[in-house]
Amino acid sequence: MKLQNYAQGRWVEGAEEGKPLFNALTGEQIATASSKGLDFAEMMHYARTVGGPALRKMDFQERGLMLKALALHLISQKKKFYTLSAATGATKVDSWIDIEGGIGNLFANASLRRQFGNETFYVDGDVAPLSKEGTFIGHHIMVPKQGVAIHINAFNFPIWGMLEKIAVNFMAGVPAIVKPATITSFLTELMVKEIIDSKILPEGALQLICGSANGILDHVQSQDVVTFTGSASTGQMLKSHPKLIEEAVPFNMEADSLNASILGEDAVPGTEEFDLFIKEVQREMTVKAGQKCTAVRRIIVPENLVEDVQIALGQRLAKTTIGDPSVEGVRMGSLAGQEQLREVKEKVELLAKTQEMVFGDMDNFEVTGADKNKGAFMSPILFLNNDPFNNTDCHNIEAFGPVSTIIPYKNLEEAIELAKMGKGSLVCSIVTNDDKIAKEFVMGAAAMHGRILILNAACAKESTGHGSPLPLLTHGGPGRAGGGEEMGGKRGVMHYMQRTAIQGSPTMLTKITNQYHYGAEQLEFDKHVFQRYFEEIQIGETVITRKHTVSETDIINFANVSGDNFYAHVDATSLEGTIFERNVAHGYWVLSKAAGLFVDGKKGPVLLNYGLDECRFTKPVYPGMTIGVRFTAKEKIAQEKKDEDDIKKGIVKFLVDVYDETGETVALATILTMVKFKNQD
Amino acid sequence: MKLQNYAQGRWVEGAEEGKPLFNALTGEQIATASSKGLDFAEMMHYARTVGGPALRKMDFQERGLMLKALALHLISQKKKFYTLSAATGATKVDSWIDIEGGIGNLFANASLRRQFGNETFYVDGDVAPLSKEGTFIGHHIMVPKQGVAIHINAFNFPIWGMLEKIAVNFMAGVPAIVKPATITSFLTELMVKEIIDSKILPEGALQLICGSANGILDHVQSQDVVTFTGSASTGQMLKSHPKLIEEAVPFNMEADSLNASILGEDAVPGTEEFDLFIKEVQREMTVKAGQKCTAVRRIIVPENLVEDVQIALGQRLAKTTIGDPSVEGVRMGSLAGQEQLREVKEKVELLAKTQEMVFGDMDNFEVTGADKNKGAFMSPILFLNNDPFNNTDCHNIEAFGPVSTIIPYKNLEEAIELAKMGKGSLVCSIVTNDDKIAKEFVMGAAAMHGRILILNAACAKESTGHGSPLPLLTHGGPGRAGGGEEMGGKRGVMHYMQRTAIQGSPTMLTKITNQYHYGAEQLEFDKHVFQRYFEEIQIGETVITRKHTVSETDIINFANVSGDNFYAHVDATSLEGTIFERNVAHGYWVLSKAAGLFVDGKKGPVLLNYGLDECRFTKPVYPGMTIGVRFTAKEKIAQEKKDEDDIKKGIVKFLVDVYDETGETVALATILTMVKFKNQD
Repeated sequence: MKLQNYAQGRWVEGAEEGKPLFNALTGEQIATASSKGLDFAEMMHYARTVGGPALRKMDFQERGLMLKALALHLISQKKKFYTLSAATGATKVDSWIDIEGGIGNLFANASLRRQFGNETFYVDGDVAPLSKEGTFIGHHIMVPKQGVAIHINAFNFPIWGMLEKIAVNFMAGVPAIVKPATITSFLTELMVKEIIDSKILPEGALQLICGSANGILDHVQSQDVVTFTGSASTGQMLKSHPKLIEEAVPFNMEADSLNASILGEDAVPGTEEFDLFIKEVQREMTVKAGQKCTAVRRIIVPENLVEDVQIALGQRLAKTTIGDPSVEGVRMGSLAGQEQLREVKEKVELLAKTQEMVFGDMDNFEVTGADKNKGAFMSPILFLNNDPFNNTDCHNIEAFGPVSTIIPYKNLEEAIELAKMGKGSLVCSIVTNDDKIAKEFVMGAAAMHGRILILNAACAKESTGHGSPLPLLTHGGPGRAGGGEEMGGKRGVMHYMQRTAIQGSPTMLTKITNQYHYGAEQLEFDKHVFQRYFEEIQIGETVITRKHTVSETDIINFANVSGDNFYAHVDATSLEGTIFERNVAHGYWVLSKAAGLFVDGKKGPVLLNYGLDECRFTKPVYPGMTIGVRFTAKEKIAQEKKDEDDIKKGIVKFLVDVYDETGETVALATILTMVKFKNQD
Repeated sequence: MKLQNYAQGRWVEGAEEGKPLFNALTGEQIATASSKGLDFAEMMHYARTVGGPALRKMDFQERGLMLKALALHLISQKKKFYTLSAATGATKVDSWIDIEGGIGNLFANASLRRQFGNETFYVDGDVAPLSKEGTFIGHHIMVPKQGVAIHINAFNFPIWGMLEKIAVNFMAGVPAIVKPATITSFLTELMVKEIIDSKILPEGALQLICGSANGILDHVQSQDVVTFTGSASTGQMLKSHPKLIEEAVPFNMEADSLNASILGEDAVPGTEEFDLFIKEVQREMTVKAGQKCTAVRRIIVPENLVEDVQIALGQRLAKTTIGDPSVEGVRMGSLAGQEQLREVKEKVELLAKTQEMVFGDMDNFEVTGADKNKGAFMSPILFLNNDPFNNTDCHNIEAFGPVSTIIPYKNLEEAIELAKMGKGSLVCSIVTNDDKIAKEFVMGAAAMHGRILILNAACAKESTGHGSPLPLLTHGGPGRAGGGEEMGGKRGVMHYMQRTAIQGSPTMLTKITNQYHYGAEQLEFDKHVFQRYFEEIQIGETVITRKHTVSETDIINFANVSGDNFYAHVDATSLEGTIFERNVAHGYWVLSKAAGLFVDGKKGPVLLNYGLDECRFTKPVYPGMTIGVRFTAKEKIAQEKKDEDDIKKGIVKFLVDVYDETGETVALATILTMVKFKNQD
C-alpha cells in the first residue's frame, strides 16, 4: 500500500517507490510513503487562497462548532484508529493518549469559542487610555494571519501531534499543511482521510504530506507559521533557514527535553507520596515505551532514599510485561521501529559508559506474544549516577525510550540546581506534601521549565500525570526544549493571529470592535432596550434613566433589608480617620438602585441577569446627592441553540454608568444578561 | 573625549583610538567610542550573577517604585540631555520625543506595578479546571528569566531606544546590557552616567557598551533575551547566529518598515480630515528629519485627490525651515551624520530612477544658521508613483530620511492591497470620518500591521500621532518589520519572563501563588477577618456565616428598596417560558444579603469596599431556600503609603461563595476591599 498525500483538494500518490514503513511489532512492511512530485509552493498558495479565506470568514462560534462536529465524528470512528495504532507498537493506553487525547484537544478548543466572542477577530486585553479628555484611546485586536500553518510533527504521536496543532490554527482561522514523521504517517493518513471525507472542514483548510517535506520552507511568507516537534538538531537546522529568517516567520519548536521528577525530602518510604512517586516514575518511563517528549529521564531523590527508590522502582519495572499489547497482561509495547531501537541503544551505550545500570538489560529480557528479533522491543533501563554535578551525561543525553537515571541530592537547593542542569525542560514534577518545599522548588526551578506538576495524595486520584500536556495549559519549554509555547487555551490560538494596536476616538473604536468603549456616542431609542430582541439591540444603545435623590432613609432601609450594618453606613460617630464625611450609602445599594432605575419590569426578551464584571465604586454617595444611570449595550455574543430550553438566545453585556448631579461617575459596572432572539429558527 | 563603557560595576575606557563621533550640525568631532578590551562573557556573567539576583528579589511594587524614582530623577536632569541632544541634529521636538518620551516609558511601566500585584512573580490568566471533583487544577505563573537582556539599539533615538526597553526588563526582574548605535552613543552614555550615579538601580542591573559589541552573541545562554532595532540585513544576520539558535534565545527584532498613511475617500478637500491628513503626513515626514522607524514612507490617496494632496503637501513642506534647531523658526534639523546622509541619498537616487520627484531637491535647498556643507542636512523629498502595482520600489526601498511617495488608489480594496505591499509594517494610519471605511480597512490590513491609527476630527486634538509608539500599546510589526513585539503594557514585561504551567491540588496552588484557589483548605479564626489588619490576614482565612432562609418578604422588600420590579421577581403570572419555576430572588439581593451575613459592622481595619469582580449567579434562589456564605481571603496587594490620607493600606480580595441548603453554590463573586496595616511606619 502506498500512502496518499492530500494536496490542493485531491488525494495524490507520490512518485517513485517511496520509503517502506513497517509494523513495529512484527517488522512486516505495511506501506510505503512518497511525497515526490508534490508542488509545495502550490500547496501553500492553495492554502493561503482557498482555505484561509474560507476560515477567516467564519466567526469564532462557527470555528468552534466546526471543531466540535469534527471531534464528535472522529470519536465515532475511533475503533479503526485503535486498530491501526497497534502497528506503531502502542498499547491501548498509548493509543488512548494519541487518539482520544488528540480528539480531546478538538473538544477543548471548540469550547474556547465562548471566550472568544462571536466575531471573526478577537479584542485583546483592556482599553489603553491615551488622553486626558478621553477623545483618543487605544486597544488591541487580533486577526487571523493570512498565511498557512506548516506543522512538522514527531513520530511518537501521529494523531495527537496533528490534532493538538490544527485544533488551534483552525480556531484562529488559519489553514494547515501537516507533515507527520514518515515512519508512523500511515496512522495520520488514516485520520486525515476520515477528516476529509467528513467534509466538516472547508476545502483548503487541511493538506497532508506523507514522506519528505524537504524544500517546503523555501516558500514560506511572512504570514505563515511553522511548528516543529522533533530532535533539537533537525529543529535548529530548520529554524536557521534563510527564508524563515528573512520573512520573520514564527517558528515554534518543541525539541529535546530531559525531564526530571523530584522526590521531596518529606516523602519517605511509608508515606503515600513515596508510593505515588514510584508509580508515577514507572508509568512515565514505560508508557509509549518511553517515547514521550515529556517522559521522566531524571529521577532526582534525596541521597538517603536512593536505595529505597532503586529497590521499589526496580520491583515495579520488573512487573512491566513487554510484548504484543493485544496479549492479555502486556503493559509495554515496542518502540516505533528498528531505527528508533538502534538510536536508543546507542544512547544507552553512551550512558552506560559513565553511569551504573541498576535495572534492565538491552539483550536479556522477555517478550510476550511477539518475536523479539522482529519487533522493536526493549527492556526498561534504569541508571544510577552518584556524581551528577561532575558527570553530566544524564542531563544531556536523551535516550528516547524507557530509559531513566536515578540522581541523588543533598538538599533542596541541590535538587533545584540538578533540575535546571537539563538546560530547559518541557515538564518537571515534584512529589511532596510539604508546601514549603513545593513553593521553594517551583520558584527556583520554574524559569527552566514549561510545566511543573506538584503531586501529593490530595490530588493524585484526579491528577492527569507528569507526562500529559493539556489543552488549557501551555506546552513547551525554554532552552534545550526549543523555547516554544503551544496550547494553553486562548494563548495557543493567538500564536496564529496578528496582534494589532488600534487607536482612535471611542466612537470609532466602538464601531470597529463592536464593543462599546467608554466615551463613545450613545444612541437613544424610543423603545426600552429590555423590550428589544438580541438582533435588534445595537452596540452603543443607551437608556438614560430618571434620577433619584439619595436620602438617609435609603441607607437605613437598605441596611435593614440586607442586614449589612457596616459602621461607615450606619454609625455616625465612627467616621473619624475614614475617608467618609458622613454615613455613606452602601455600594450594593447604589448598584441595586441603579437596577431599579434601568430595569424595565415588563416581560420582554431579556431573560435574566446572570452576573456582573468589573464593578467599581468610584466616589462616595451621600444623602442629598442625586444619581442617574446611563445604561449602554456594550457587547453581544450570540449562542447556538441550547438543548435544555430550546430557546435561541445570546449574551448582552451592558455598561452601567451611575453618575451624580455633577455628572461625575459614582459607580461603573458591566452586567451580563441573556436576551432572546426574535428569530428562533 | 573618549566615551566610557560601564562594565562589571566600573567605568572602563576602551582600548585603542576608537571610532570618531561627530556633531551632526557642524561636522566637528566631539568624541570617540571604543569597546576594545571589554570581556563580554564576563559582563554577561556579572549581569546574571549580580544584577539578576538583586532584581529578582524585589517584588513588582519595588521594581515599579524603582522605575518611578529613576524617572523622577532623570526628568529633574533633563536640561543636560537636551543640550547634548542638539549635537545629534535634533530639534527641540525631536529631543522631546527622545528624552521625555523615553522617561515617560519609565513612568508608564512603573504604574504597571498595580496590575502585577506584589509578589516577585506573576500569576497569569485564569485557573484551568482539570478534574471533575476539583482536587486537581492548573494555573500559570510567570517568573523572571534568570538571564540578561541584551539590547542592540538604533541610532535615531539614543535615549528612548534604551529606556523603552530597560523599563520593561527591569519591571520583569531582569538585568540589561545596552549597546547603543555607536554614532549617537555619546547621548546614551550621558544618561547612563546619570542613572549609575543616582544609585537607584541595584548594581549589575545595567551595563553599557559604547562601540562595537561584535562577538557578544557567542556567549548567550537560554535564559537571555536579545532585542535588536535597526536594519533588516543586520538583524537577520544576528538572528541566524548559531549560538542564539542553539540556546533557543528569544530574539526580538524591529527592522525596516515602509509605513503607509491612507486618505479616506470621504476626506476630500474642505473636510477637516483632509487638512489633518496633510498636517500629519508633513509632520511624520519631517520630525527627526524622517529618521523614525514609524515615519510615513507611503502616502496612499484616492486617485482623484492626488493633485490636491501633492499641492497641499508641497505647500506645507516648502514652509519647513531646515537648519540649526537653536535658531528661531527652524523646523527640521539635520540627519544624524554624513554617513546617514550618504545612505539616504543613495536610496533617493534609486527611487528617482522609477518615480517622479514632485517636491524637493537633494542639492538645492536652504539651510538656516548652519553650514550646509558641514552639517548632515537635506531637503524633504516627495515622490509620485502612478503605477504602484507594477513599479514596486516605493514599497521596498526605505530611504531613512524625510522621503515619501504619493501613491494613488482606485477603491478601498486597492488601498488595502497597497498598504499590504509594504510586506509588514510597524504602523499604518487612515484618515477618515467614515466608520465603514475605517472598519473595512482595519479588518483587511491589520494582519500586516503592528498598529493602525484611525484619525478623524473627533480625536485629532488629543491624538498622539501616526509615529508615536506608546508604552501601553504593542510596538512591532510582522514580516519586513521584523516580526517582533515590544511594550504593550503588561505584555512587554512578559517577554522577559518564563511562563510555567503549574498543576496540583487547590491547597498546594494556593500556597504557591498566594492566591486562594477555589476548593483549597479554608482556615477559620476566632476573630472576624474584618477585625484583622492587612498583615494578619491569611490567604485562605474564611468566615463561615450564619444562614438565612429566604422568604417572599425578602424579595418584595428588596423590590421596594431598589425599585427593581423585573417581572421574574414580582409577577407570578409571567413565568411561562422562562427558566424560573416561581418568582426568583434578585441577584443583587443575594449579593446584598451575603454582605449582611459576612460583614462585621464594628469599626476595624477594613476601610471600604471599592468594587467587585466576576460575580456570577449560578442557581436561582427561591423563597424557602436557605443561604449561607463562605467568605475567604483570596489575594492581598500591599500599597505604598499614599499622600492623600497618609494611611498605609492594602487591597484584600475576598471570595464570596453563597451556597444553599444542599451545599450548592448559588452565587460566586470576588469583592475588593481596602484594609489598614497594623504597622503604619
